[in-house]
Amino acid sequence: MKIAVDAMGGDHAPREVVRGAVQAFQESGYSVILVGQESRVREELSAIGGFPDKGIEIVHASEVVEMCDAPSVALRKKKDSSIRVGLSLVAEGKADAFVSAGNSGAVMAGGLLILKKIPGVDRPAITATIPAPYGPIVLIDAGANVDCKPEHLLQFAYMGEAYARRFIGITNPRIAVVSIGEEDSKGTDLTRETCELVRHTSLRFVGNAEGRDFFSGKADVFICDGFVGNVVVKTMEGMAQALGPFLKTEIDKSLLAKAGMLLANGAIRNMRKRLDYAEYGGAPLLGVRGGVMICHGASDQKAIKNAIRAAGAMAGFRLDEEIARSISSKGPVIV
Amino acid sequence: MKIAVDAMGGDHAPREVVRGAVQAFQESGYSVILVGQESRVREELSAIGGFPDKGIEIVHASEVVEMCDAPSVALRKKKDSSIRVGLSLVAEGKADAFVSAGNSGAVMAGGLLILKKIPGVDRPAITATIPAPYGPIVLIDAGANVDCKPEHLLQFAYMGEAYARRFIGITNPRIAVVSIGEEDSKGTDLTRETCELVRHTSLRFVGNAEGRDFFSGKADVFICDGFVGNVVVKTMEGMAQALGPFLKTEIDKSLLAKAGMLLANGAIRNMRKRLDYAEYGGAPLLGVRGGVMICHGASDQKAIKNAIRAAGAMAGFRLDEEIARSISSKGPVIV
Repeated sequence: MKIAVDAMGGDHAPREVVRGAVQAFQESGYSVILVGQESRVREELSAIGGFPDKGIEIVHASEVVEMCDAPSVALRKKKDSSIRVGLSLVAEGKADAFVSAGNSGAVMAGGLLILKKIPGVDRPAITATIPAPYGPIVLIDAGANVDCKPEHLLQFAYMGEAYARRFIGITNPRIAVVSIGEEDSKGTDLTRETCELVRHTSLRFVGNAEGRDFFSGKADVFICDGFVGNVVVKTMEGMAQALGPFLKTEIDKSLLAKAGMLLANGAIRNMRKRLDYAEYGGAPLLGVRGGVMICHGASDQKAIKNAIRAAGAMAGFRLDEEIARSISSKGPVIV
Repeated sequence: MKIAVDAMGGDHAPREVVRGAVQAFQESGYSVILVGQESRVREELSAIGGFPDKGIEIVHASEVVEMCDAPSVALRKKKDSSIRVGLSLVAEGKADAFVSAGNSGAVMAGGLLILKKIPGVDRPAITATIPAPYGPIVLIDAGANVDCKPEHLLQFAYMGEAYARRFIGITNPRIAVVSIGEEDSKGTDLTRETCELVRHTSLRFVGNAEGRDFFSGKADVFICDGFVGNVVVKTMEGMAQALGPFLKTEIDKSLLAKAGMLLANGAIRNMRKRLDYAEYGGAPLLGVRGGVMICHGASDQKAIKNAIRAAGAMAGFRLDEEIARSISSKGPVIV
């Protein structure tokens, strides 16, 4: 298994990316290709004592897509960017997957342009895995497509189902449409028409789900447009991060609570860890050929390491082929 | 101050509603009109030892709007429902505000039909107050309007601003549009056009906000359509409720943590209390004449009590008049 990693992508690149990549290699044994400006990548590798002859290589890419670059412009003008070069390695079969914490719009657009779509998929989608009390849930689309049609959401359902089943290991995952009421009639035209479409497939559809159902155990895969999905994922992220300050304010009020928290510290840390995006490393862009893992811009070494590990596992399952098979066998139903 | 309360509305009506109303009267001194089936309301009052001659009265309404009733049908067919009768009391000046934990669609539709809109407002909106580390934030619309135009979101901005300033006491509140990126260009046509509109007003506009900004202190008032707002509010609610089970799993793993949590219990409880919707009691429906407070269907005695208290305070500020003044003076700007 060989994973191409965007060494220049993310707020803490190349430092944290290089460190995460080396750690991933050491822990998982996956070969890693660091894609980016060679001199800077070598510098970071030297700082941590060099790198082994086998298992880690560098592929030079002279340009860097900045976070503020418009995706389409970046792809057109920066032909030798780490994003384009990294995705091309996957397209050419020289790498099994690509991991990037860089400009996610450019990674998505590049994935579409360079890797091409799986048959039956019109819109690749970002797939977030979210910890919940009854086990992880899958939210798709978490930000790739702001405007969607019902048939796109149906495709997300197929993709999310395959991901939940093969990658997370959920038997016969339950699918729900994110909406604002339980009945099919509630919501927008988009959610109503999507319900109608998904009901006529062989997917295990449980109807509409409300925001609170992300944590109620009602469904395993939640489908929505990328605007709603992105707001939801970032709301959860913000809330998880706010727990610290929230709790601290309360604890500072009482000496007894302070003493208690010292003892319970490990448990609190574990809970926050379970809510921490870095534990999942990244969110796959499903619907393109090959594997693409999009990481949080703020990714640190640990997040990169976990993303590489997840990308390797995903590529091992050949999730792209599984999705194509699933769509063609269950067929995008025309009602 | 006199508050009409829908005695028949909510999962635990009339029992919890009646108890909450009596408690609100006892604690705040607001007069309460219990609207609903008189015999059932009297029964509940007897169960808690009757009621004082002054301060609490009953207005009979023979019909009950069920949670599953379609709002428009319910309003048309059930002319003597507690929702219609309660709202009419406000329209006739016999009550200052109406509080209901019943069918929120029917309360919204009824508010529009019976109380009428404030000049300058096309769409009344539900206004959620959310605890955040840097103080409460306001989210509008939290579920009244699934499909919105930019001018509706602009009106929400005026309404939310007046609410945050007068009711919550935030000086010169900062307004943000809920979107999926910081730059004005990010998001949907709706968010982009709304940014354009709000930038040309005298409101203190801070641009787009992402989901994580609900907790980052970036803005005080967040405007969005009612679909996104409802999903966000319910996601937060679900996550707050999930903290208990999450933490318990971790704590059960260690005896030390268990001991610690006993000591820190009060602090944890306080934190969860701060995240608990019942503390805020309800969300006002802004944009109609008079005051309307929509409560969670699962409202218990405490939630109803707090909602009545908030409704009384809101009516005291004459928030409806403040909004009308604000819109007419700052003017809905045509670009």
